Amino acid sequence: MVSTHTFTVFKGDETGKIHRATTTRKLNPDEVLVKITYSGLCGTDCHYRPSGCVLGHEGIGVVEELGENAHRFKKGDVVGWGYIHKTCGICLNCLKGQEVYCVAREFFGTHDLDQGSMGTHAIWREAYLFAIPKEIEPAKAAPLMCAGATVFAPLYENNVNATHTVGIVGIGGLGHLAIQFAAKMGCRVVVFSSSEDKRAEALQLGASEFYSTKGKTKLEVAHKIDYLLVATSYLPSWELYLDVMNALGSVFPLTIDPVGLMQIPYPPFLTNGLKIVGTIIASRGVHTIMLEFAARHKVQAMIEVFPMNEEGITEAFAKLDAGKLRYRAVLQNQM
Amino acid sequence: MVSTHTFTVFKGDETGKIHRATTTRKLNPDEVLVKITYSGLCGTDCHYRPSGCVLGHEGIGVVEELGENAHRFKKGDVVGWGYIHKTCGICLNCLKGQEVYCVAREFFGTHDLDQGSMGTHAIWREAYLFAIPKEIEPAKAAPLMCAGATVFAPLYENNVNATHTVGIVGIGGLGHLAIQFAAKMGCRVVVFSSSEDKRAEALQLGASEFYSTKGKTKLEVAHKIDYLLVATSYLPSWELYLDVMNALGSVFPLTIDPVGLMQIPYPPFLTNGLKIVGTIIASRGVHTIMLEFAARHKVQAMIEVFPMNEEGITEAFAKLDAGKLRYRAVLQNQM
Repeated sequence: MVSTHTFTVFKGDETGKIHRATTTRKLNPDEVLVKITYSGLCGTDCHYRPSGCVLGHEGIGVVEELGENAHRFKKGDVVGWGYIHKTCGICLNCLKGQEVYCVAREFFGTHDLDQGSMGTHAIWREAYLFAIPKEIEPAKAAPLMCAGATVFAPLYENNVNATHTVGIVGIGGLGHLAIQFAAKMGCRVVVFSSSEDKRAEALQLGASEFYSTKGKTKLEVAHKIDYLLVATSYLPSWELYLDVMNALGSVFPLTIDPVGLMQIPYPPFLTNGLKIVGTIIASRGVHTIMLEFAARHKVQAMIEVFPMNEEGITEAFAKLDAGKLRYRAVLQNQM
Repeated sequence: MVSTHTFTVFKGDETGKIHRATTTRKLNPDEVLVKITYSGLCGTDCHYRPSGCVLGHEGIGVVEELGENAHRFKKGDVVGWGYIHKTCGICLNCLKGQEVYCVAREFFGTHDLDQGSMGTHAIWREAYLFAIPKEIEPAKAAPLMCAGATVFAPLYENNVNATHTVGIVGIGGLGHLAIQFAAKMGCRVVVFSSSEDKRAEALQLGASEFYSTKGKTKLEVAHKIDYLLVATSYLPSWELYLDVMNALGSVFPLTIDPVGLMQIPYPPFLTNGLKIVGTIIASRGVHTIMLEFAARHKVQAMIEVFPMNEEGITEAFAKLDAGKLRYRAVLQNQM
């Protein structure tokens, strides 16, 4: 017996306006119907807003119905999901535990365009849902599903440890989580921001040093950086940051930049043996470890909550576009 | 007793002309006077030709006299040296075995401007000389001192092994050695060259696949690349090569490019989790391992020999500038 479900979703259009719509999907045997409670709002939603796909890929909800082959969760469980909808499981990247680079990956924005985390419900393969640890408030778990995974993965995958100095450029949805993760890993955390008024909060989140970059053409730091996470909404001025890297340091640009070109000054890159490293979200294994780590170390998003309707979503986007969120918008369905 | 020695050296000038000159240096207690037999000619010599410094940093010679505290070598030993003249030994990079990034490093082109490997003699700290294994012909050892170290280091330092596919862009002084090193490490070796007429030689050197890039706007390869060594004399068309990388692959630009800017297309870099990795020559430990490996696996430079005098050096530079060397010029002193 395959049941069919009709639910409300929210999407954008070419003008940026948010629309309510309706989706009908079958609940296949390996799938779960989730009643959405919260959705984070990510910069990537801005990029896909004009495309007309259903928005949201930082989903939190409650299991409402299970397909006949779905046995991992039970009704009422709090689950979450992120950017990854499906991977093939048999390509070499999948088999090596690197499913984010699956040759047949199905992601938000390119697949399942008729549903997302902005809506009343969604139907997902059970295998791509995550159990949300009870230690994490569901609303604050939402931003972990993309932003959290994105900043945790480069730290985890590169064996960053408590002897290292981690630099973080930009304190926003990603950066404010990166500060917490790196600090809880025991790292020295050096934060760069154009907003001097975020200094106190950065230090409170775990930063060891804070540098305002506004108007600066050269940075001076007390400690040079081993791993630099670039979490601004645009690619930075590279010469500024290559200059504060330790030899053999790694730079992780996490930004989705519309310009599409990294212009790296070659001499400082080469003569200091630097690495510029591409990284996207996290495979499910790393995502799961991220959630366990966040639960154990009380890493949680600082959020602003908006109602999950056209007005609420529109207002959240406006605040994100204006750079005024502190630090992640979360849409909430009426309980 | 500190002896003093006067010897012939060769340098360039702003017009590119080569001049004979004379240098006088003391032989300090920790130093060795080397009678130069061979010098490789490297692209970096072209960059420093107008500066007026003594040229050459791929030196091979015979120990002629030892300072009173120099005991590692004896008279008549065949020794070599490369780009590194001195490191501090106490900065963190030195202590971590990464002396090429020493904060007080003294290199060719910036230090000891009055001597190089183009000349009759040179005086170097004994600790920065390498014993040349007897299995390697001295003339063919010269190009190992910079080119060999430069291509071996990224393979060695990144644990490249026989399960990997190594790509090499450009078959010149660096590339023809890189092919051999990677092939002798058991790797699949994929070579890219704009010269179709180098195909046979590339395959003979150990390449598994050869692709002519002339006029190509897209590359098709049988096997995608895990580690790409870019050994051309200019930075390549990045979109061409990012496209043939395996997910999580590493790109090593080895070029000294006068343009000074790497323009990396961001989307393929990011979505495939690629790394762009800076690397320069090799610290002495890796350099020593390179020489042992070359001796054991019969890796040797293919060279064209020119006399070590104004005419010979001028002719060698001209052939290098014209891209006509196969594959490395070596200057030879009269025996």
